[in-house]
Amino acid sequence: MAESQATKQVYRVDLGARAYDIHIEAGCLKRIGEALNGLFSRPARCMVISNVTIAPLYMASVRTSLEQAGWQVSECILPDGERYKTMESFSLIMDALMEARLSRNEPVIALGGGVVGDMTGFAASCYRRGIPFIQIPTTVLAQVDSSVGGKTAINHPHGKNMIGAFYQPRLVWVDPEVLHTLAAREIRAGIAEAIKYGLIRDAAFFDWMCSNMQAALALDPAVISTMIHTCCRHKAEVVMQDETEQGMRALLNLGHTFGHAIESMTRYTTYLHGEAVALGTLLAARLSEQTGHAPAGTETKIAACYQQAGLPLTMPDFDAALWLDAMGHDKKNVGARIRYILLRGIGDGFIAEDIQPESIRRLIASYHA
Amino acid sequence: MAESQATKQVYRVDLGARAYDIHIEAGCLKRIGEALNGLFSRPARCMVISNVTIAPLYMASVRTSLEQAGWQVSECILPDGERYKTMESFSLIMDALMEARLSRNEPVIALGGGVVGDMTGFAASCYRRGIPFIQIPTTVLAQVDSSVGGKTAINHPHGKNMIGAFYQPRLVWVDPEVLHTLAAREIRAGIAEAIKYGLIRDAAFFDWMCSNMQAALALDPAVISTMIHTCCRHKAEVVMQDETEQGMRALLNLGHTFGHAIESMTRYTTYLHGEAVALGTLLAARLSEQTGHAPAGTETKIAACYQQAGLPLTMPDFDAALWLDAMGHDKKNVGARIRYILLRGIGDGFIAEDIQPESIRRLIASYHA
Repeated sequence: MAESQATKQVYRVDLGARAYDIHIEAGCLKRIGEALNGLFSRPARCMVISNVTIAPLYMASVRTSLEQAGWQVSECILPDGERYKTMESFSLIMDALMEARLSRNEPVIALGGGVVGDMTGFAASCYRRGIPFIQIPTTVLAQVDSSVGGKTAINHPHGKNMIGAFYQPRLVWVDPEVLHTLAAREIRAGIAEAIKYGLIRDAAFFDWMCSNMQAALALDPAVISTMIHTCCRHKAEVVMQDETEQGMRALLNLGHTFGHAIESMTRYTTYLHGEAVALGTLLAARLSEQTGHAPAGTETKIAACYQQAGLPLTMPDFDAALWLDAMGHDKKNVGARIRYILLRGIGDGFIAEDIQPESIRRLIASYHA
Repeated sequence: MAESQATKQVYRVDLGARAYDIHIEAGCLKRIGEALNGLFSRPARCMVISNVTIAPLYMASVRTSLEQAGWQVSECILPDGERYKTMESFSLIMDALMEARLSRNEPVIALGGGVVGDMTGFAASCYRRGIPFIQIPTTVLAQVDSSVGGKTAINHPHGKNMIGAFYQPRLVWVDPEVLHTLAAREIRAGIAEAIKYGLIRDAAFFDWMCSNMQAALALDPAVISTMIHTCCRHKAEVVMQDETEQGMRALLNLGHTFGHAIESMTRYTTYLHGEAVALGTLLAARLSEQTGHAPAGTETKIAACYQQAGLPLTMPDFDAALWLDAMGHDKKNVGARIRYILLRGIGDGFIAEDIQPESIRRLIASYHA
């Protein structure tokens, strides 16, 4: 369940030589310079990577803190949105790193949401075969989920996150106060990823989220703080057990096989990632019921929670063949096992590898009955 | 020193969970299918990545062996040459992997020289955040050096190998017989990298290379086999001690700081990599003498060996400022330490971090006196 929040909380993600802290504290953004000085023997150069939406809000504060701590700061500002999580943006980051001549020991800092974090992490993993990187997540989604765990990637036109690396940050620096400049829609989308942790491994947290939804949407400090702490603890626990997703880490992908298909079929222009994951989770819940794994009513319970969160509930109308193709069940892939994350009930996710295309067709058809 | 060759020799590169074999055997190319079946629980799909020069010579043989062993083979054929080791080629490989829908457990096979191996390895490290890859090196340079050790990369317009990963192959499968289709110039360039091992850590091997140069150039089986064995053993020893180049692995970069500058200043159109490394090694040797580290005559001894090998000895004529810029000694980099690999003598390389731009200016000026 959810623990009550403290002023400041630090989780250690213990991955041996790649261990790092998740530091959660209201107002900590303006102390990032000190934090960096705790990690490096002396300040040198660094680059902050952000986007056109976040940079005007927080870059000055981050830069001031870094410069006061002795760092020489370069910037790389990208366009905003999942549809820019591309090879082109990756190239822009590489050009900026080359231009700034960052050496192998000088860090890049991701200041933004999941897209900025994923791209920055991947760039950090590749530039000179790997330089340090720091996450400063600025969206609910990034604070509760994507900034922790070292999954980095860009999208390929034919699939989300297909080009990337497992590459851990040196520090995740979470300031919940920055969430106040988010659009309501962004907050809702992030909350979908928070609810996910309840669904796969913490039924009490799911209930707590449902009960505290209006306070969470209003960014009530106590509720938001507890939500972030709980999610980061779950994420850290899972990643420590299975860093490179050989097994149980896949549970974190609940709603993502369907969700990625939705994002890909709509070319990343219609839904935010968290919204697509919410829709994908509804599909996973219904599939869990239809295949006899979850009790009747599971999908309804989840939908009720999403409705409170103001998340979309209407399934986009694509042909089953399109769904199957977008999820990799195409002719070339006969016999390939697509993993689905299903539920035995709220709080109990599992990995199913025996789902046949026929079950998916039936699932999709049930929305058009 | 050089050990005498056996019909077949296997070195284990012991990197814990990432350990793998270097298998050296004349004629082994046509048994790659069996080799793969020894690594994977059952044959599935794979992709062979090669270039327009190598594919017509060896793809059919590789494909036949793989198909007979039960593998379903896709191909990706790239243009030939260092100047194609680019983001564009990387994108082409990603497109091919997406098109073939390789899963996370299905391997890519690099069939070619250093460029094909470096690009394939980097693509393997990124595609779905990492899939298995196999090296089948087909040049002297790749067989004695680049196929072992897990350095993978592509070039950036402003610097060689700036975008890459440390990502180990699952197997290095070396057939010295394929060298017979190489151009003489390619053989010479590869021999430069073999000589490097003598220069940094094995004076007896350097002498042996000088004494056996004509036999090596003629691809005498016994000499070539001994040369490959000795280099692979040295490479494996170094990589096991320092996989990610925190320290002594940098010795393998003898001649490379200067060599990369030469390649970059000539836009990868004038020299083969091994030729640029040979020129760079002469610079490193002269710098070693000028800074009082190596005895007089060191450069001359190396040049005599290179002359026997038919390697270029004439230094390209660029302004010292261009050299300094190409090696990272620019205005932005004041105070940054550029590492040079120098020699205390033949067989005794070391890392120097205290070389000042003034020493480089004097070095370059000495060629135009």
